[in-house]
Amino acid sequence: MTWLDFQNRFQKIRDNKAFELFVISVIIFSSLMIGIRTYELPGLAETILISLDYAVTLFFVLEITIRMAAEDRFRDFFKKGWNIFDFVIVVVSLIPLDDSEYALIARMLRLFRVMRLISFIPELRVLVSALISALPRMGYVALLMFIIFYLYAVIGNMMFAQLNPVLWGDLGVSLLTLFRVATFEDWTDVMYEAMTLYSLSWIYFITFIFFSAFVFLNMMIGIVVEVLDEEHKKMEAEAEGVSEELTAIQNHEQKVEAEIALLHQKLDALLAQQQTSR
Amino acid sequence: MTWLDFQNRFQKIRDNKAFELFVISVIIFSSLMIGIRTYELPGLAETILISLDYAVTLFFVLEITIRMAAEDRFRDFFKKGWNIFDFVIVVVSLIPLDDSEYALIARMLRLFRVMRLISFIPELRVLVSALISALPRMGYVALLMFIIFYLYAVIGNMMFAQLNPVLWGDLGVSLLTLFRVATFEDWTDVMYEAMTLYSLSWIYFITFIFFSAFVFLNMMIGIVVEVLDEEHKKMEAEAEGVSEELTAIQNHEQKVEAEIALLHQKLDALLAQQQTSR
Amino acid sequence: MTWLDFQNRFQKIRDNKAFELFVISVIIFSSLMIGIRTYELPGLAETILISLDYAVTLFFVLEITIRMAAEDRFRDFFKKGWNIFDFVIVVVSLIPLDDSEYALIARMLRLFRVMRLISFIPELRVLVSALISALPRMGYVALLMFIIFYLYAVIGNMMFAQLNPVLWGDLGVSLLTLFRVATFEDWTDVMYEAMTLYSLSWIYFITFIFFSAFVFLNMMIGIVVEVLDEEHKKMEAEAEGVSEELTAIQNHEQKVEAEIALLHQKLDALLAQQQTSR
Amino acid sequence: MTWLDFQNRFQKIRDNKAFELFVISVIIFSSLMIGIRTYELPGLAETILISLDYAVTLFFVLEITIRMAAEDRFRDFFKKGWNIFDFVIVVVSLIPLDDSEYALIARMLRLFRVMRLISFIPELRVLVSALISALPRMGYVALLMFIIFYLYAVIGNMMFAQLNPVLWGDLGVSLLTLFRVATFEDWTDVMYEAMTLYSLSWIYFITFIFFSAFVFLNMMIGIVVEVLDEEHKKMEAEAEGVSEELTAIQNHEQKVEAEIALLHQKLDALLAQQQTSR
Repeated sequence: MTWLDFQNRFQKIRDNKAFELFVISVIIFSSLMIGIRTYELPGLAETILISLDYAVTLFFVLEITIRMAAEDRFRDFFKKGWNIFDFVIVVVSLIPLDDSEYALIARMLRLFRVMRLISFIPELRVLVSALISALPRMGYVALLMFIIFYLYAVIGNMMFAQLNPVLWGDLGVSLLTLFRVATFEDWTDVMYEAMTLYSLSWIYFITFIFFSAFVFLNMMIGIVVEVLDEEHKKMEAEAEGVSEELTAIQNHEQKVEAEIALLHQKLDALLAQQQTSR
Repeated sequence: MTWLDFQNRFQKIRDNKAFELFVISVIIFSSLMIGIRTYELPGLAETILISLDYAVTLFFVLEITIRMAAEDRFRDFFKKGWNIFDFVIVVVSLIPLDDSEYALIARMLRLFRVMRLISFIPELRVLVSALISALPRMGYVALLMFIIFYLYAVIGNMMFAQLNPVLWGDLGVSLLTLFRVATFEDWTDVMYEAMTLYSLSWIYFITFIFFSAFVFLNMMIGIVVEVLDEEHKKMEAEAEGVSEELTAIQNHEQKVEAEIALLHQKLDALLAQQQTSR
Repeated sequence: MTWLDFQNRFQKIRDNKAFELFVISVIIFSSLMIGIRTYELPGLAETILISLDYAVTLFFVLEITIRMAAEDRFRDFFKKGWNIFDFVIVVVSLIPLDDSEYALIARMLRLFRVMRLISFIPELRVLVSALISALPRMGYVALLMFIIFYLYAVIGNMMFAQLNPVLWGDLGVSLLTLFRVATFEDWTDVMYEAMTLYSLSWIYFITFIFFSAFVFLNMMIGIVVEVLDEEHKKMEAEAEGVSEELTAIQNHEQKVEAEIALLHQKLDALLAQQQTSR
Repeated sequence: MTWLDFQNRFQKIRDNKAFELFVISVIIFSSLMIGIRTYELPGLAETILISLDYAVTLFFVLEITIRMAAEDRFRDFFKKGWNIFDFVIVVVSLIPLDDSEYALIARMLRLFRVMRLISFIPELRVLVSALISALPRMGYVALLMFIIFYLYAVIGNMMFAQLNPVLWGDLGVSLLTLFRVATFEDWTDVMYEAMTLYSLSWIYFITFIFFSAFVFLNMMIGIVVEVLDEEHKKMEAEAEGVSEELTAIQNHEQKVEAEIALLHQKLDALLAQQQTSR
């Protein structure tokens, strides 16, 4: 049996619908296991879960090996971003940290297996790609928002730091406080406290809320407009198609007219000959 | 009088506008009765309400019997989902639980009669159907959202369980806490408490809010885009109609040109004959 | 000087740009006066404000009399809804309640003069008309929303009334509590309290939030779709215009073809004659 | 070396990509410096930061001088709004306030340098211009919203001022309280307190929330509709182009028909001559 035969068999396994479903089941099962371990469990169940966890780890190694072996060329496997994503998740969960003092980190790393659901279900993969491609579109608005936050955070720190260092002590906590205000979370408590020092502090808070809400709303509207523009361009391309066909028709018509003009000339010649031949 | 005569009469009753209005009135009246009983009432009123309740139950049985009898074939009645819905609501409220210890459940079951308003008013029926048909469109986004919640819930449980078991004790309460954070409900209280243990906990909360808000916003935009795409397809179909008509015109034109070419040939022949006949 | 002369003069006053600006100034001034009186004022200022208030009342009576007299027929004045609106506001503020025990109501009635800004600025009038015309579009969704609230309010009252009568004592306060939950206002406090009685109460709250948010979101999307549909119909009408023109062109072409066919017949006749005449 | 040579050299510096990047770096660096000073720093760092601050101020003066000198005519510089913006920020930060009692104001003025990021990055400039141009579109809705707030604020003051002067004492704080209610921030606390005085106060709050939310939602929808309308007009212009081309085709066709009619006349003449010549 040659390597190609093996590869072929692996490809068949990989593309098998039943195998896919089984892998998804294992991913879901391993995710549930992680969830179950957040509850207090009797010792036996704990032991079983740990063994199952080893089994899942082993299965994932096997599965990714099959998918790697199924590729025509080994490096092709790493050309797809989602494969690298899977590979990292599987490799990272192999690091033997369980019994060390980093047990918490080990469990957390294993948690990322849940995200294999995303890499395995095509619809979720498409969705996440769409989300990531939507990011740059928000880039400059995010920068503008950050500048607003930065300005207000420094001003807030300058004005209210002595009053309440927990909320306005430095730039970091000021930014956090402003984020809280932007989510309307007990923002009046923050404002009423600030107003005990400067009675006009409400201007600071109201303008901040207006600015951030205004920029946010316009970002939303901007995205809708952008999507509309894209639609519009598609329509325009079609309209151009119509326009081209119309031009073609007009050209045809001119040719027809020229031909008819020729007919006239010929008929005129005939008439002239008739006249003279009489 | 045959069965067909009865059936005919029942159909007339069922399709009678006045009967329909009366049924709606009874539904509204029975809903109000349920509402009134949440207030403390004098004994007499309570007695009257209970008798009225029996009357309503009886009327509903009558009404559904008429509608069943009015069908040409009995089983046709159960082919419409809304009929099954009505049937279940009526049958369930017949279960004699009032005097038993399940009186609360009995009242709750009778409460679902309010929902007969939905099955009886066509506009509401259309609305609910539209809402249900909008569900799958949100399916994968909901799944992605759940994965985010699941990941953060397990991490939250790992990190903050000892700190506050009420909020982070197991996966269930962690999910609940995260839902609370996602609604911005006193989320800073949860965060400030978590920051007493790990001062960098704000990263956990801010990223969670960003992720969930980002996915949510994109879902909204995605739905608008989808709706736009459907509109676009309708427009495209029309544009195709125009395109077909244009092609038809072009074909006609080619025929005209061919005909004119023929005219030329004939005239050329005439001219040649004239020439030779001289 | 006849009545017509007077009427003419009144019309000139009414349509005078300066007069309009003056009326708006008086409306704004009277609104400010009402606002100023919410602050504690020295006795003199109070007295001046009261006299000014009488002056404003008088002016409004004068202004509406001019506008009524300017109409060609008296009853035409009451054909416009906004005129009735103005008339009621002016008449109502004439009721002499200031010194009686209903002074508060008197002030409140005078407050409605602020709303004359809406009836006087055309752009605001258009805006309010647009808002009112948007109401029916939301009618059935509001009804559906109310049914959801009603159902949950009765269930909430049944389950939690003994626990906290202030929040769940009867249908009314239950509805208020649910509205509070729908605005995410300290809804977890309500839920955590309910969970002390039934630990599964979170299902009640989470499903309620999902249902109400889902219906609300779909209403929003529905409105956008409706607006898009209206746009689409406009576009369709235009596309039909193009379609009609195309049909006209096709008809023309058929006529051209028929004419050319006739030309062929005639030429064939000519050729035949030539043949025989030789 | 003449002035023109200098000017040329300045223009080269100004349009140099590396110089631009350096200016942006200095702006970001000076913004970070302001942020860093919100943290407690050792004396030395403080001294370094102050010197660096002087350096930045100097650099900004230099940079704006170069840009002014690079203009063909000096006054052209002040024709662009963003240049004036930059100029004011640079000049204002020159005011020597650091050692006086207005040190706080001095620091705040220097803070506005952060906003030079907006004037320097073209994408942000476009964004801010777009935001500003979106303002008037919201103007009348904002006015309507303000009228609603004003009405409710005066009513709230009249009814609840004795109950809680902190929340309802005068028009100003009443407006602030209503803004708080509109953001759903602990609005039930305000309502429950008001209900202790008048048990029907919930009507005041619920109607206010409905009115303000309704107007806000319709503003959002209104903006989307407006954007759609603009798109629609663009499409209409294109459709008109198609319409014009169609009319051109129809005119051509009429000409063709007229020509063919002439051909018929000529052929008829020929046939008639043939007839007579026989």
